[in-house]
Amino acid sequence: MTRYKLTIEYDGRPFVGWQRQTNGTSVQQSLEEAVQAFCGEKTRVYGAGRTDAGVHALGQVAHVDFSRKTDGGTVRDALNAHLRPAPVAVIQAQAVGDGFHARTSARQRNYLYRIANRRAPLALEDGRAWHVQMELDAASMHDAAQVLVGKHDFTTFRASQCQAKSPVKTLTAVEVERIGTEILFHVRARSFLHHQVRNIVGTLKLVGEGKWNEADVKAALEVCDRSSGGPTAPPDGLYLTRVDYPTGS
Amino acid sequence: MTRYKLTIEYDGRPFVGWQRQTNGTSVQQSLEEAVQAFCGEKTRVYGAGRTDAGVHALGQVAHVDFSRKTDGGTVRDALNAHLRPAPVAVIQAQAVGDGFHARTSARQRNYLYRIANRRAPLALEDGRAWHVQMELDAASMHDAAQVLVGKHDFTTFRASQCQAKSPVKTLTAVEVERIGTEILFHVRARSFLHHQVRNIVGTLKLVGEGKWNEADVKAALEVCDRSSGGPTAPPDGLYLTRVDYPTGS
Repeated sequence: MTRYKLTIEYDGRPFVGWQRQTNGTSVQQSLEEAVQAFCGEKTRVYGAGRTDAGVHALGQVAHVDFSRKTDGGTVRDALNAHLRPAPVAVIQAQAVGDGFHARTSARQRNYLYRIANRRAPLALEDGRAWHVQMELDAASMHDAAQVLVGKHDFTTFRASQCQAKSPVKTLTAVEVERIGTEILFHVRARSFLHHQVRNIVGTLKLVGEGKWNEADVKAALEVCDRSSGGPTAPPDGLYLTRVDYPTGS
Repeated sequence: MTRYKLTIEYDGRPFVGWQRQTNGTSVQQSLEEAVQAFCGEKTRVYGAGRTDAGVHALGQVAHVDFSRKTDGGTVRDALNAHLRPAPVAVIQAQAVGDGFHARTSARQRNYLYRIANRRAPLALEDGRAWHVQMELDAASMHDAAQVLVGKHDFTTFRASQCQAKSPVKTLTAVEVERIGTEILFHVRARSFLHHQVRNIVGTLKLVGEGKWNEADVKAALEVCDRSSGGPTAPPDGLYLTRVDYPTGS
């Protein structure tokens, strides 16, 4: 058996999400079927993050074990051939040690959230950004976001169906910047609660609109109650951009 | 009658191109139908550039005349409502003088061409970039491109069906840069021949692969023969990004 680390890009729109579900095709299932078509082995593909339906990835990471011996480049090209025409691409495949686990070895997960902040509809980016027509103040959003950085009970930003044992997470960074008519959120943490990024973005949008201020975000965080947070931002703008591992894996 | 200048974004994939054709829907037709639905007047929409089938726009410019009096914001929003669900969006609409003509008043047209230069297929950018698997040398491409800048007979880079009176054009700039796995071409001129940008990109790709050098590009230009140039790059990677007009229009 050899373990391979896969770095994966996908368009989340046609999928029910990363994880296998009974109600449609998942990214995980597409990959598992491609692995089986390639090496004839029915195996499980383990992902670093369970992205929701409609959420995209530029650098999801997964691992898979199979006995067929070959090099990473062959694995990448073969899986891509079998994945076609699904919008999933294996960017890189490399043999790793048995100690590597895509989910538990991950040291940091990096997400990007894109808001298209303009009046006109999105001809080119529909489904790939959250279209917000009202002008948002990115600088205020960035400032207010800083109260979320650090170790907190994030119950206010946690989906009711979240399966994590504890609502306490350490948010490494939230950076909000405007580039032209786009507002970009760069969010980093070792791990996240279900919907945590989208609930943070939905709350910061209230700040951008001038309805909330930094103190409101702080109060919402401290009350530890989901109903005190802002609405959940749509999946369209969310991208899992990169997963970081200890050097050497 | 009031003349409106429209700035337009579109995804070129579902269209036969900018211009009305008998074999499918054009961007022009979609806009003309939206104008008619809005003001009840059957009018012509004049574009700055006749983009081909599959070519995208971030900032195409067009003008249209109609007698219904209203402000630019209302025109923009109404046309967008009538354009739905076609992937065409009016970014801006503004009343201009009768002397403004989208095509003949244009002083410079700016195009972007994107090559996705990587082994893996494109999960997110399929149809929006030219996927080239062999690693290209962007610096050599940029250097070789400089022999095309200036006033030349561009017959070598001109489609056989081109309707321009003269093959002589002045290319203001061609800049080629690599950003990660993307190679971006920024091409500017007052006006272009049919397929000129795509033929330039297809020729520079030969340089990026090491098959051609700067002297080959120069020789191909000077021989004034389309069959001496490189192949036509696909429309997928081409974007009309901006059209410049004299100050005040």
